[in-house]
Formats: sequence, C-alpha cells, structure tokens
Amino acid sequence: MKKIRVAIIGASGYTGIELIRLLNNHPHVQISQLIGNNTADSQLDELYNHLYNFNLPKLKKLEQVNFAEIDVVFGCLPHTVSQAIFKKILSDQNNQHLKIIDLSADFRFENPLDYTRWYGHEHLASEIQQKAIYGLSEINRDKIRKAQIIACPGCYPTSALLPLIPLLKNQLIENNNIIIDSKSGSSGAGRNAKTSNLFCEINNSFKAYSIGKHRHIGEIQQELSKASDSEIKVDFTPHLLPVNRGIISTIYTKLNLNIAIQDIKNCLLTAYNDEYFVKVADHEVALSDVVGTNFCLLAVNSGNNNNSVIITSALDNLCKGASGQAVQNMNIIFDCDEKLGLEIMPIFP
Amino acid sequence: MKKIRVAIIGASGYTGIELIRLLNNHPHVQISQLIGNNTADSQLDELYNHLYNFNLPKLKKLEQVNFAEIDVVFGCLPHTVSQAIFKKILSDQNNQHLKIIDLSADFRFENPLDYTRWYGHEHLASEIQQKAIYGLSEINRDKIRKAQIIACPGCYPTSALLPLIPLLKNQLIENNNIIIDSKSGSSGAGRNAKTSNLFCEINNSFKAYSIGKHRHIGEIQQELSKASDSEIKVDFTPHLLPVNRGIISTIYTKLNLNIAIQDIKNCLLTAYNDEYFVKVADHEVALSDVVGTNFCLLAVNSGNNNNSVIITSALDNLCKGASGQAVQNMNIIFDCDEKLGLEIMPIFP
Amino acid sequence: MKKIRVAIIGASGYTGIELIRLLNNHPHVQISQLIGNNTADSQLDELYNHLYNFNLPKLKKLEQVNFAEIDVVFGCLPHTVSQAIFKKILSDQNNQHLKIIDLSADFRFENPLDYTRWYGHEHLASEIQQKAIYGLSEINRDKIRKAQIIACPGCYPTSALLPLIPLLKNQLIENNNIIIDSKSGSSGAGRNAKTSNLFCEINNSFKAYSIGKHRHIGEIQQELSKASDSEIKVDFTPHLLPVNRGIISTIYTKLNLNIAIQDIKNCLLTAYNDEYFVKVADHEVALSDVVGTNFCLLAVNSGNNNNSVIITSALDNLCKGASGQAVQNMNIIFDCDEKLGLEIMPIFP
Amino acid sequence: MKKIRVAIIGASGYTGIELIRLLNNHPHVQISQLIGNNTADSQLDELYNHLYNFNLPKLKKLEQVNFAEIDVVFGCLPHTVSQAIFKKILSDQNNQHLKIIDLSADFRFENPLDYTRWYGHEHLASEIQQKAIYGLSEINRDKIRKAQIIACPGCYPTSALLPLIPLLKNQLIENNNIIIDSKSGSSGAGRNAKTSNLFCEINNSFKAYSIGKHRHIGEIQQELSKASDSEIKVDFTPHLLPVNRGIISTIYTKLNLNIAIQDIKNCLLTAYNDEYFVKVADHEVALSDVVGTNFCLLAVNSGNNNNSVIITSALDNLCKGASGQAVQNMNIIFDCDEKLGLEIMPIFP
Repeated sequence: MKKIRVAIIGASGYTGIELIRLLNNHPHVQISQLIGNNTADSQLDELYNHLYNFNLPKLKKLEQVNFAEIDVVFGCLPHTVSQAIFKKILSDQNNQHLKIIDLSADFRFENPLDYTRWYGHEHLASEIQQKAIYGLSEINRDKIRKAQIIACPGCYPTSALLPLIPLLKNQLIENNNIIIDSKSGSSGAGRNAKTSNLFCEINNSFKAYSIGKHRHIGEIQQELSKASDSEIKVDFTPHLLPVNRGIISTIYTKLNLNIAIQDIKNCLLTAYNDEYFVKVADHEVALSDVVGTNFCLLAVNSGNNNNSVIITSALDNLCKGASGQAVQNMNIIFDCDEKLGLEIMPIFP
Repeated sequence: MKKIRVAIIGASGYTGIELIRLLNNHPHVQISQLIGNNTADSQLDELYNHLYNFNLPKLKKLEQVNFAEIDVVFGCLPHTVSQAIFKKILSDQNNQHLKIIDLSADFRFENPLDYTRWYGHEHLASEIQQKAIYGLSEINRDKIRKAQIIACPGCYPTSALLPLIPLLKNQLIENNNIIIDSKSGSSGAGRNAKTSNLFCEINNSFKAYSIGKHRHIGEIQQELSKASDSEIKVDFTPHLLPVNRGIISTIYTKLNLNIAIQDIKNCLLTAYNDEYFVKVADHEVALSDVVGTNFCLLAVNSGNNNNSVIITSALDNLCKGASGQAVQNMNIIFDCDEKLGLEIMPIFP
Repeated sequence: MKKIRVAIIGASGYTGIELIRLLNNHPHVQISQLIGNNTADSQLDELYNHLYNFNLPKLKKLEQVNFAEIDVVFGCLPHTVSQAIFKKILSDQNNQHLKIIDLSADFRFENPLDYTRWYGHEHLASEIQQKAIYGLSEINRDKIRKAQIIACPGCYPTSALLPLIPLLKNQLIENNNIIIDSKSGSSGAGRNAKTSNLFCEINNSFKAYSIGKHRHIGEIQQELSKASDSEIKVDFTPHLLPVNRGIISTIYTKLNLNIAIQDIKNCLLTAYNDEYFVKVADHEVALSDVVGTNFCLLAVNSGNNNNSVIITSALDNLCKGASGQAVQNMNIIFDCDEKLGLEIMPIFP
Repeated sequence: MKKIRVAIIGASGYTGIELIRLLNNHPHVQISQLIGNNTADSQLDELYNHLYNFNLPKLKKLEQVNFAEIDVVFGCLPHTVSQAIFKKILSDQNNQHLKIIDLSADFRFENPLDYTRWYGHEHLASEIQQKAIYGLSEINRDKIRKAQIIACPGCYPTSALLPLIPLLKNQLIENNNIIIDSKSGSSGAGRNAKTSNLFCEINNSFKAYSIGKHRHIGEIQQELSKASDSEIKVDFTPHLLPVNRGIISTIYTKLNLNIAIQDIKNCLLTAYNDEYFVKVADHEVALSDVVGTNFCLLAVNSGNNNNSVIITSALDNLCKGASGQAVQNMNIIFDCDEKLGLEIMPIFP
C-alpha cells in the first residue's frame, strides 16, 4: 500500500506529539511535514527530549510546505487560528485533494451562529464549517468515510456522547434530565505557560471550573439534540484532576417509563458490540484502564433513586479524546483497518 | 482554665494522628491517653516518623486506662468496633461523667434499623445510639452542647449537608432532585495495607466506586429528610482522587418555582454569616483552599438549564470531615472558643 | 517464523504484566501459559482491569502446565522462590530444551557465597546458578545468545553498570571512588500490600532507604570487578520517588590521571554507538524521556572539582530494568531483531 | 510586648505567602505592609484563593510605604532586584533603624567577587553586602542577634551546611571529598509561568539540573571553607522532585583517619543537642517528616566502603530553607523565643 503522506500543523503542542506517537506506529503512514510557526527550524526533540531517539522531519513554517505532496493534514491548532489557516490552504486550487482532520473547535458546529454563541465571535470560514463532518468515529463512520473535512469532537464531548447518543436514539432516558460531571487531567490545558497550570498549583489539588458555561456544552447539545430529534439542554461541570491524562465523566440521567437499568446496559452492549474501541465494562472503570489508549470504557449503574441511571465513561483526553480519534478517522477515510496505529495496551502501573 | 483531659482510642490511625496534630495546638487540652490495642506499648513516633519531635504519651491497651481521670474520649475506630468498646466503657459506673466524641458511623443513625440497613448487621448498643447527637457542628450546636455522646458526621455527608440543609429548610430547592458527585483523597480509606490503596494503583488514576450504594447515603438522607420534613432520596457517587486529603462535592439540584439563583446564595450567606468555618466563596473553590484546615468552602453557580443549581463544597476529609469537626464539637461541649486548635492557615503550595 | 511459545511464572505481579504488555506487541511470540500459584483459575483482567480488552490465557498453577510445549519461561518471582521452582522444572528430563529468563536475584551471582552474603541464606540450586549468564544485554550479548539460563540484572544495577563498565574496562576512572545515588519509582516494590507502599505514605514524600547496605550492591560490585579486573567497592544509596516508574542514577566518580571529561563521553559514545537502546544524550536526562520504553539514557557532566565526573543514567525500572531487558534477551537467544516488541515511543505528557 | 511591625517586599511569591502563613501565627508580630510592585492594589486573596478567610493588608507599591513605621523588612525578591531595592531603602536617613532579612542570594557572599563569579555581574550594593550576616540560625546566632542585615541561606545550602559545618570544624571528615546530591520539590522554582514548571512536565518525572555548576555551590563552599579554615570544593547536583515542597540532600564524605561513624553521629548530637529545629534521627528521614515545618532532620549512616559516611538531611525548602529560617532569624534579632510562629507539627498524611 502506498504510504499516506501526513502533515501536522501545530506539531509542537501536546496533541501534535500525541499524533506523532501514534502515527509513528502506523504501517501505512509517512510523517512528511511537521509545521509549527513559532517553532519552525527546530527539531522537535529540542522541545521534547523524549523524542531524541526518533527520526522526525524538522519543523517548518506553513509557507514552506507544498501541500500538493500531502494526502492528509491534521490541525492541532487553537480555535480561531485553525479556521484562518485552513481557509487559506483550501483557497489554493492545488490543495483541493487534501483531507483535513481538525482537532480544534472551529468546524464542530453545523450552525455558524452556534459557533458564535459559544466562542464569542463570527466564524471566518463558515463555508468550510458547513462542509465539515463531526468526527465521532463510531457514530458518524459513514459520513466520515466520504468527507473532506473532519472536525474531531472535543475530549469531554466524546466521553459524554458515546454513551448518551444510543440511549437517546432509542428513547430509553429522559431528554431533559442529563447531568455530566467530568474530570480531566491537566494535559487538556495544553503546553501553555500559565500560572494556573504550574505543578505546584495543580498537584494535591482539584477544582471545578467554567461551571455551567463551558464551551463544550454547545457541541454536546448539538449532537444529543440530533440523536433525540428534540432540543436537549444539559448541565455540565468540568473539573481539573492532578494527573496528566484522562477523563472520567459521571453521567446522571433518568430512565424513561417502563425502562429498566438492564435495558440501558443492553442498548450500549448492542450499539458497541462490533466496536473495538468502545466497551461496556462490568467493573468500575478507572483512568488507568484507558490512559495511553484509544479506548472509551463505559459502565452502567443504577442510582439510589428508583429511576436514576449513573453512567461512568473513561477515556484518554489526548488519545480517544483528540489525536487517537483523529487517527481513527484517518483510517476510516483512507480505508485502513481502523485499529492501525492504535492497538496499544495501557501501561500499568 | 483547667485542662481538658483527653483520651484517643484508635490513636494510631490517620484520624487519630490528625486529632493529635490539632489538639497539640489547643491551649486548654492535655493529651492524657493514647489507646491502640494493636499498637500498645509503642511510641507513636515508631509508627509515624514525623512525630519524632513531639512528646506524646505511650500507646496503651484499653484496659490499662482509668477513664475516671479522663474528661473526653475520642473514638477513632472502625464501625462495629466502636459500639462494642463504648458500650463497655459506659457500662462502668465510674465513667458516667465521660463525654464521648465518636468518629465512626456507629452512632450516626437515629433509627437502629437504618444502621442495620446500611451496615448489614444489628447494632450492639442501640441504647447508646439513641442518646447520641449527630455532630454537624454548625447545624446542631445547641444539641451538641448538652450531649454526652456525639456521633461526628462522615466526611462526604459533612460536605453535602452544610450547603443542602439551609436550602431545604427554606424550601428553595426541589426535594426529589438532588445529586451529589463527590471526589475524595485517598486518606479516607485509612492506613490499611490493601492492594487497591497502593501508591502505584492510585497515582495517575481516578475512579468512581460504590456507585449508587455507598453507606454515607443513609446519613445524608436522614439529615436532609429531617431538614425538609419529608423523605428525601439522593443520588450519590464517591470518587477516589490521587491526593492525600480533601473532598470536593459537586451538588446538582433544581430551584423551586419563583426562586432565583441569588436566593440560594443569599440563603447560604445568611445561614453561615456568623460562622468562622463555613464560608460562601466568590471564586471557584479548590482543595488547596481548605487542605489542612477546618474550613468548608461553598460556591453557588447556576447551571446551563434554567432552574438548575450547581454547588461546589470543599473541605478536608480528615479535618472538617473528621478530626477537626470532632475538636470543634469538643470546644462546643466544654464551652471553649470554637476556633481553639483550629485556626490554621492552609499550607500553600 | 514459528511462534516462540512463552510461559510466564508469576504473571500477576508488576513485572509479569509488563512482560505481557511487551510480548503482546511481539510478532513472533505466542503467550502460551500464564502461571500464578495464588491466582490460578482467575483471568488476569479480574486482577488488572486495564487488561479487560485483551485475550489472554487463564492463570494456572505450575503443575497444570506442560513445559514440553513451551520454548521459553520467564520467571517473575520473588528471590528464593525462583530457585526452588526452576530447580524442580529443570529436574524433569522433558524440560531440558527450555530457555529460562529469570528476573529475580537468584541466579545473578557467580559465586554462591556472594548470594549467601547478600541474601542471608544458602542457595538451593547452586548448580543452576553456576550455569546462568548475567543478562545485561549490551555487555553480555554473546554469552546470552548461547545460554540456557539468563539472570536478568536488577533495575538499579542496570542503570549503574551500563555507564560504568565501559569506563572501567578502558581504565578511564578511579576504581575506588564510585558513588551511585539512585532514585526509583514505587513500582520497584511490587504489588505488595504493605503500609509503607500506600499512596498516602509515598505521595508528596521522598526518602533514602537501605543506605549503605542494599542487596543490589552485591551484583554491582561483581560486574564492576569483572570489568576492571580488580576488586571494586561502591557506595550506593537507593531512594523512593513518588512516581510509578523509572530510575535516575546519579553517579559520581573521578577521572584517572590525564583523562579528560570528553574522553568519558567519547568512550560511552563508542561503546554504545551501534546500540539501539543505550544512548548518550546531550541534554539533561529525565524520567519522562524513558518511561514505558526499553531505553537507557546517559548524560556525562563534569563536576565542580577538577577531576570529578557526574553521570546521570535514566531507565524504566520495569522495562529496561526488568521485563524489557528480559524480552531483549529473549530476542537475542531466539535470534530475533533485538527491537521486536520494544520499539515504543515514550508517552508524553 | 509591643508588636513587631513587619513589611514583606515581594509578598505575592511563594516565599512571601509562606512568611505570611508563619507570621500570622506569631503572637508578637503585626503584618503591617505587603509590597508587590506588579500586584499592587490587589488583595492577596485575589492571587491566592486559600487566603480568602484571612484579614491581610492590601498589596502596595514600594513608594507607597513609609518604612519609618516598620521594624523589619523581609525581602522575597529575585536576586539583583533585591540589592537595588535595599540600596534605595537604606539610602534614606529615616530608614536606618530598619532590620532587613533578605531571602535572595544578593547578600550571601562576603567577597563581592564571589557574587560576580556565580551570578555573572557586578554587585550593585557591595557596601551593604559586606555588612550582611549569613543567616544560618544555629551556626551564626550570635552574629545574627547584632546584625542589621541578614542574608538568609539558600534552601540547598541550609540542608548541606547544617550537617557538614560541625563535622569540618571538628576535623572528622576529609575536606576534599564532599559530594552533595540534593533533591528538591518544585516550589523552589517559584511561581513563574514557565513551560518547564508545568504540571504535565514535572508530574511522573524527575531529573538532575545545573549539574556541577549550580549557583548554590558558591555559598556552600564559602561557609564550609570558613568552618574548616581551608579552601573546600564540593560536588553538588540538584534534582527536581514531583512534590511541592521539601529537600532531601544525600551527602557522601569520608571519615578522617581514626574516626568512626559513631563519632560523626556524636558530633552532630552534641552540636544540636540544645537546638529545637535541628535533630539527629534514628530512622530513615523522609520529606513527610518535615514538610510544613522549620525542622531539619539529619541521619548518619556508614556506607559500604570502610571509611565512607552517608548523611541524609531533610527540610522544607520554603520553611527552614527560606521563610521559616527568616522568621527564626527575626526571633533572634528581636529577642523572642526562637520557636514563636514556628511550632508546627507536620501534616500527615
């Protein structure tokens, strides 16, 4: 098989190097270009010592790259930046063949007004946005296969949507009673030198943030509303864990009338029966079950109230919640085995 | 003032040494007896090197202690053990003067059947249980003052009850829609040599446990039902954080009709206006705001849904959630300034 | 190529599951038998949830396994236990074809008296011990290739021997002035439910232990003495880091007369020029450069004194310091590419 | 007793808030002025939520403070900045009464050329520097008592000097064979938003830095040379631990002829017999024995070589290594009980 020629824009951030970790294992991929405007002309191992032993191309500026020689571009950029850059790349007639897999929030909303509502400014490339497919691999596989532009879901949304979409599609739970209490490792904040991300500020501590107003609410509601064919509003609270990687979402919802907790479990077992990366577990799921991998592990429990359901969902925010799902989507687009580059056993302990 | 003569049974566990840390600062306390049946005849600093520099009495067996010379006994024992020991102590006519401040679950239930329901066996000392006062200091101060036996609340319940009781008493929130998502540090499990408590198993990880069935549900429901004068059921999920100390509970509830989020905040501000240890914060509360102290910090937020309320509550599980509240209760009983031994600024970083 | 049929005795410990992680990636290996006397009849994923998604054979008792159908046995057993079990296995005529790769200390000493000196009792299988080869892959590759029994080096010794052996062989440093200050993650203590290994006891802390008398001194001195053809004594202090994995050894030694620091660096560069797993770095080496991998990273620095040399050596105690080196030795014995199963990029962050 | 009026310059850094934690406990201190040029007009609890419940003066600019109304100024400033500011303050005739306790490196060197050698530029206030006393409390108590300007020792030097000075003074160890291998928590780097201090970069990792050339070598050598009356050179390697606080230094040295290990222990026991804050322990010292306190714990061990000595020294870098020793020096100067503000039991776990 001819190698897939890959470029990564924003290669020197945490999702960029996670892509490199995964693609480096992929038998059909050639990492052709690493792009980082602020880090151009460096070797990546000057920024990340752990890469000293791996042969990687030097970082370049965007304008140094000929995208005609690239098959797929991964965007590992902050929101706003991503839309500007991909608008520019796609305005070039030589680049029309390019597949784009974007990890930012820029192309996740179907309605540009929703983008504006949650991100506070007008979208710069709404024509691209409207062509993009929301890249939740297991749910949108068929659309992803034919798409040119994939907007990979946020890390928190992936953890919430995978369990909730099948339940809403099958009308097993109440639409207006969904609470998502999520806890994420610190890598979700990226490699940004901010006081609040310092070791001493996060170690030994834990807190909620952006309570009731985190931007990921927007995309969660968009996808749940589509699944249920009704307007869904959720309560969502993210928290910051003193770990590097991983998300656990604890999801509270209510059984519809005449539905039993076993129906919930059966629904998820059926929905993900043929999926390699999403599993319904019999045990209490923990971060250590998934960190470093592309798995999303779900567990279904009844609450103490008669009709309450408590679902825990675990994934690695940098992998299934970002770069791993991006690679999975690339495998779908290029008709590779979906597991390529992603068959990793968790490191434990 | 004559010194209060204190004995601690179970002094060599984590809540025992936390009591020692606090009482060692207390100007009116003399730590007279440390009791540990498995550790008798040791010095505590053989078990805990960090105590090497502090003059503490040698550990003794229960039968070596003359309780006639003691004013107050703290029980830092596992449930079941506590009821047996205090039954025996109180059966001695010479010990009727004793004040008992118990940190186990043994005396927290008013109805012995509730104890049996949640702990799975009959209570051995139900006559003591029925005299005991639930020692949530700010709520039950008047009863605590006159009581002989205090049952200190569990760590999770303290974090949930302090915000919820005033709201239910004032009928500001729906009774049947309370979800408590709690996250606790590892010291809550005590100093027990179990595989699941090993460093390698907890570090870098996070998980929910006892979902929908944790024993603390029982006492939370008992106290909330009393506050609201109705039967209340809650959903409660505890999680295990990779930190030593601290609890954050994220509490989801719904506003009653015509109640606004500001009413919630005002209610808590009023309820705790004169309290030193419970504060309503304007910022996002974090473990690092409370660890090592007897504070409980509350923050009130509206959710994304119209009538949803999200309250975060932070405390130190070993201090306000156990030994600190026990000392606060001792101060109430012995008519000391409630802050004695407990005026500690958090260590940060 | 015909698959190598592997059995692991002691599969349910940390080095056992690390072997499984690595061998699961190995194209020429079939994990045929997992043996755990205390855990027999369990599935490994009942003991380690993170293995839920991987098809592994059920754990068996030793006597349930027919070693005639096995090519290589890995021993992941405590010292003393290992020698008894392998003595028994090798006493069976049907098992003479077996290759044995042992991770315990039992076969590391050439002189049974050295074993007795450091482990405090007589060796039970000194005839096996005398046939065993010390499995420091890069140093003893030729002997390993022909050996039946490999005694994999300890984790600390591997980190110290890889830099020191070439320097002593080439007479670049003083023989009588070697200090090894090592810091290891907590997984080195294994999955043993001991108070001192609890999360709360290790998190936020750090300490030296077994100062001046740790058993690994014995094998370090044995191998350095052979390399230098003289009797070498070292000072060695192990410390316990609040991390799961990884060792950094900081090694202090003195230049021989007329030797410059660049000679030290050149010697190591030459010695490991053709090695994939041992590298001399230009940067300060960190645990995060090597955790999860089979690399050993070395850095050479001059001290503040004229002739002092400070070498830092980093590896993953469970991988290059145990199971990874064991797989590397299997690759040598079975004439596989030495990198098979071991080409892993570190996970970062 | 009249309250000591305290000003803290650089109050919003980690050593600043540690001073506040300690002074807030001090019965004879009034925290009169908090100074922070970049943070002026803020309340400290806007920068540190954990201070929300404590009444502290608003932060001011230097020029807003009348030092005539202050008794003692603590300098919590970066080196270079400190010398400029104190030069200015002391140039005012109204400020000649001021006691100055500086935590930077600016006044630690007796010889201005040594400052230049280690800090790379000329000293701006060498006339002040020459009047300053090196504030190692137990060693220089008499000089501190009469001094106007105290240069508090660095955190690493404090951990090394306390054990080594008595041994050198008594000629028990070789002068030319001192190796100090130190490991420090991350708070030593201050609250600076640098990539290398991010949680994800430090958690799970460990590394040596500034090998053979760290600036603290200068002051260690100055003080050891004075103690031994000879020129002493040491090898010193600092390492970065994934903990917030604490230093362990493992010190390797050699016994002089006819000296036994017990002589070493006796020497330290005698030297610190009457000291509250420096103790010789019988157990392996750990960070958790000292974190949060002003103690320095020492342990003496023989090595594996005949005449080698291995001393471990543990302290809290922000407390005995910085702000705690500063308060201790203030107590000495103002003739208070040296323990005031500093009688703190470690929090454990």
